[in-house]
Amino acid sequence: MRITLIGFGNLGRGFSRTLVQKSDFLRRKHGLVPRVVAVVDEFGAVVDEKGLNLQALLKKTELPGAKKGKLALSTIADVDADVVLELTPTNIETGEPGLSHIKAAMKAGRHVITSNKGPLVVAFQELTSLAKKQGVEFRYSASVGGAVPVIELARKQLAGNEVMEIQGVLNGTTNYLLTRMGEEGAPFDMVLREAQELGVAEKDPTLDIGGIDTACKITILANAILGVNAKLKDVRCVGITRIGPDAIRLAKEAGQTIKLVGVARRGLLSVAPRLVPLDHPLAVGGTLNAVTFKLDLAREISIAGFGAGPKETSSSILGDLIDLHRTLGC
Amino acid sequence: MRITLIGFGNLGRGFSRTLVQKSDFLRRKHGLVPRVVAVVDEFGAVVDEKGLNLQALLKKTELPGAKKGKLALSTIADVDADVVLELTPTNIETGEPGLSHIKAAMKAGRHVITSNKGPLVVAFQELTSLAKKQGVEFRYSASVGGAVPVIELARKQLAGNEVMEIQGVLNGTTNYLLTRMGEEGAPFDMVLREAQELGVAEKDPTLDIGGIDTACKITILANAILGVNAKLKDVRCVGITRIGPDAIRLAKEAGQTIKLVGVARRGLLSVAPRLVPLDHPLAVGGTLNAVTFKLDLAREISIAGFGAGPKETSSSILGDLIDLHRTLGC
Repeated sequence: MRITLIGFGNLGRGFSRTLVQKSDFLRRKHGLVPRVVAVVDEFGAVVDEKGLNLQALLKKTELPGAKKGKLALSTIADVDADVVLELTPTNIETGEPGLSHIKAAMKAGRHVITSNKGPLVVAFQELTSLAKKQGVEFRYSASVGGAVPVIELARKQLAGNEVMEIQGVLNGTTNYLLTRMGEEGAPFDMVLREAQELGVAEKDPTLDIGGIDTACKITILANAILGVNAKLKDVRCVGITRIGPDAIRLAKEAGQTIKLVGVARRGLLSVAPRLVPLDHPLAVGGTLNAVTFKLDLAREISIAGFGAGPKETSSSILGDLIDLHRTLGC
Repeated sequence: MRITLIGFGNLGRGFSRTLVQKSDFLRRKHGLVPRVVAVVDEFGAVVDEKGLNLQALLKKTELPGAKKGKLALSTIADVDADVVLELTPTNIETGEPGLSHIKAAMKAGRHVITSNKGPLVVAFQELTSLAKKQGVEFRYSASVGGAVPVIELARKQLAGNEVMEIQGVLNGTTNYLLTRMGEEGAPFDMVLREAQELGVAEKDPTLDIGGIDTACKITILANAILGVNAKLKDVRCVGITRIGPDAIRLAKEAGQTIKLVGVARRGLLSVAPRLVPLDHPLAVGGTLNAVTFKLDLAREISIAGFGAGPKETSSSILGDLIDLHRTLGC
């Protein structure tokens, strides 16, 4: 399988490391021999149609021997690859540069796997229509839930069910903050500072604590699983900045906990702090993510795991890659 | 897709009801038109190669117009079907009658879907080898976890991971008993009687409370996911009969709960009551089942849902059926 990799930052490098470490496993267990024929980052591109030496690339902070310039679009179009992996950073306003990368790949007849929320939030219908028109596969397991294969679980194993509702704890940072407030009885500002020092929260945590990141994921899940045409602006969104340790303590005394929960059902998309019973599968601690599907046959299926981290997210990207290999035989 | 259905008890009828109710959904969403050409129970068989009227069959307590006699094996062999659904009751000593049904189906070149733990516990390797030799598909999602698609999740979406360990709360009855003891502070015998009155526990609850049912499921998971050749006797098994409400209360004070947990890793298969942190995804209440996979990339992925019930279990059987339809195009 010939792969063009777009994005060689934290995730692109993490995934490359996984490919190197697991090459024996992938060949032995799945008959999959991934060959990365091009790597592009924002500064340049390296190409070797016989397959790049990822181990050597990973030792350098810049792509060694790279042609300089913004070469993503021409590399996607010109280098013969079965699959384009789009792993650039997310921009939820424009979807760029991922959106242009994905369109270029599809127009060149290449299958696409992405971890990038931006293009999916901005142009879900456009991209899925384009993939259909071009007869290419389009997978984005890693865009929601990190390592937690929410979308493909719903589409494959739960395919016999009508999905009535999706509820999700989809942001590890806010879940960490709420968990710490519950454990320590410490106020929001204090646990936020602690999380920022630990690198669990970003310097500007607005997208996380304001619920916007969760709203993006709910938008993607609604489109991908419920089949609606939802936009980010359709999500009613309340963050966690007004939650204090007292509220969490009171909830606990009633056998509940407070989680930032995104909800998607036909006619309602929302993100807000909600009470969750302590023994419900959504009541996961720390940075975990969890999703509960309400279903006509299975009633409730919940899945939980780590929603971030380059190695963890590689699990979902690799799951998509193996699935394409099985489906297409390339 | 032509289907022979073996077993027309609680589950066989529940699944038939699901097929009737969801025929539009299956055609519209998945292009799947299931046609049940034979139904066999322990008393007889009905066959119609054009497709039986399931709705009519469901109205009767006995199969109307059935040929009498033990006709399962000849029906499996003689009636032209793509898939045999084996949904007879479990016998974990002999695997019968399911074991003979499954072998007959494979030898006749038919794909097999089963919910039956017995044949898998008794003859996992033999059946998977026979399926391979005969070039047929063999699916058994519903045999472990009811509605919770434990096996296929590990094989498909988590396929890029090495599974280091599987931990499971796999028996709804024991989980219900432990949950009730925790809530009520009531002793084991009392919550057991209550559960028996509600139909959550069987009159003879030995297989559940002794941990044997969980041990069967751990055996299947070890074979299916870890690829070992495990037998039921390899599982070290301790049940929950010695757990009292005091132990659960003490655990709770330490932020933990007690669950009957099955564990499978290379070199260790066990079932025993274990402490689980209250905010861990295995700490699910009531009759829920939950499984946690320890993985090299994703670290931990957990999935939870209802482990029993004919409608819930139909979700897994239908998931297998849709997967065969996609894979084989029949």
